[in-house]
Amino acid sequence: MNLSKEFTSAILIIGNEILSGRTVDKNTSFIAKWLSELGVSVEEVRVIPDKEKIIIQTLNELRKNYQYVFTTGGIGPTHDDITSQAVAKAFGKKYMYNQEAYSILEKYYANSEFNESRKKMAKMPEGAKLIYNKQGSAPAFYINNVFVLPGIPSYVEIMLPPLKDLFTKGKKIISVSCDARVRESTIAEDLSIIQDKYLDIDIGSYPYSQEGGFGTVLVMRSTNSIALQKCKEEIEQMIKNFEK
Amino acid sequence: MNLSKEFTSAILIIGNEILSGRTVDKNTSFIAKWLSELGVSVEEVRVIPDKEKIIIQTLNELRKNYQYVFTTGGIGPTHDDITSQAVAKAFGKKYMYNQEAYSILEKYYANSEFNESRKKMAKMPEGAKLIYNKQGSAPAFYINNVFVLPGIPSYVEIMLPPLKDLFTKGKKIISVSCDARVRESTIAEDLSIIQDKYLDIDIGSYPYSQEGGFGTVLVMRSTNSIALQKCKEEIEQMIKNFEK
Repeated sequence: MNLSKEFTSAILIIGNEILSGRTVDKNTSFIAKWLSELGVSVEEVRVIPDKEKIIIQTLNELRKNYQYVFTTGGIGPTHDDITSQAVAKAFGKKYMYNQEAYSILEKYYANSEFNESRKKMAKMPEGAKLIYNKQGSAPAFYINNVFVLPGIPSYVEIMLPPLKDLFTKGKKIISVSCDARVRESTIAEDLSIIQDKYLDIDIGSYPYSQEGGFGTVLVMRSTNSIALQKCKEEIEQMIKNFEK
Repeated sequence: MNLSKEFTSAILIIGNEILSGRTVDKNTSFIAKWLSELGVSVEEVRVIPDKEKIIIQTLNELRKNYQYVFTTGGIGPTHDDITSQAVAKAFGKKYMYNQEAYSILEKYYANSEFNESRKKMAKMPEGAKLIYNKQGSAPAFYINNVFVLPGIPSYVEIMLPPLKDLFTKGKKIISVSCDARVRESTIAEDLSIIQDKYLDIDIGSYPYSQEGGFGTVLVMRSTNSIALQKCKEEIEQMIKNFEK
C-alpha cells in the first residue's frame, strides 16, 4: 500500500488568489509530476496567505520534515510579494541584494526605468543561489533545501527542469493505469484483494461518469516495474471478468 | 491589508491523486468562492495522502484552529477510501452504519447487488448528519464543524449549496478587479501607496503576458463595499496615468 519513500518533499503555495478561489493552482500538478520522474514523492501541499508570520512558521515546519520544499508565489515587485523576505527571516539570514540578480534585472530594464519595485526582485536571503528564468527577467532562488519559485505556471515550467541535477535521485516512480467500464463499487472487493497482494504498489481508484455510463480509472504507482506489470495484468483480467 | 476575518475555515484535500500530480484540484476553488459569498474566509488549504494517521492528526489540528473545516475525497467504496473511518477516529466516535444512508443506498442498488463495498459508503461516525447527493447515490456527512465531502467536483458542486443555512454568516466578501495593460513593476510603487490608504481592502496584483504584451490584473477584496468603490476608482485613475 505504500511506495518506498526515500526522498520526500512538500509544496508550499503562497497566495491569497488561490485561497479566495479566484485562481486554480496548477503548479502543484506540474511540480509533483516532475518530482515523480526524479523519484521524489510529494507528501504534503499547503496553501497559505501572503502573511509573513504564517509563511515563516509553515516554511520552518516543512523544511524540517521533508528533504525538499518548493514554494510558489510572492516573489514579484508589488506590495503583496513578501515571500523572499519571509524566507530570509525563516532562515535567520539577511534580506539583501543579490549582485548577480541585480545585474540581470538592470540589464533587462536598460531601456526603461529600473525603479525600486524592480530592484526589489533582486533582494533575497544572503547566500541564496539563483534559479534562472529564460523567458522572463527576474530570477528565483534556492537556499539549503528550499526552492523559491514564482507563482506564474509558465515560469515554473521553464525554471524547474534545468535544476534536476541538484536532487539526490530516488528510484523513478512509475505510474500505469487501466480504464474499467464498470462502477467503482462493482470492482471494489476484488481490487482490495489485489491491493493486499502488492504491498509496494499504491493502487488508486477514481470513478467517473460519462455520457450516462459509469467507469473507473485505476492507477498503479510504484518504483518496482516488474511487480507493476504483474499487478496491471491481474487488474486487467479482473476488469474483463466484470465487463463481460 | 487584512480583511476582517470573523468567520474562518480550512479545506483539507485528501487524495494521493492530487499529490502525485495526476489530478488538478478543482474543489478548493469552488468551495472558496462559495464560502466568500457567505462571508467565510478560507485561511488554509492542505493536501494530504490517504493515510489514516495523517488524516486524523491534520483534521484534529484544523478543526481546533478554524470555525469550519471542509474535507474532500476518500468516501467512496474502494480500499483507498478511508476518510470516514479516520474522521470517526479523530472525533473518538464509533464508525458504524448510518441507517438513513443505508436505506438510501439500498434503494439505489435495488436492481443490482448491494455488496459490502456499497454498504461501506453508509458507514460514518456515530451522530453524523447527512449531506444529500441529488445526482449520485451515496450521501456525504458532517459532524460538528467538519464537512466531509466526496472528491468528485461535480458532486461537491451540487451537494454544498443546499447547506448554506447551516453557516453563521459573516459579511459577504466582495471582489472587484481592474485590468491594467502595463507591467506589474511599473505600477508597483503607486499601488503600494493606495494599499496603505485602504487597510480593510486586500489588494492582489497578478501579472500576465498575452500576445507578447504584458498586463496586470488587480483584484480588490473587502466586506466594505463603499471603500471598495473608492479604492477601485483610485486604482483606475492610476492605471490611466500609466497607460497614456
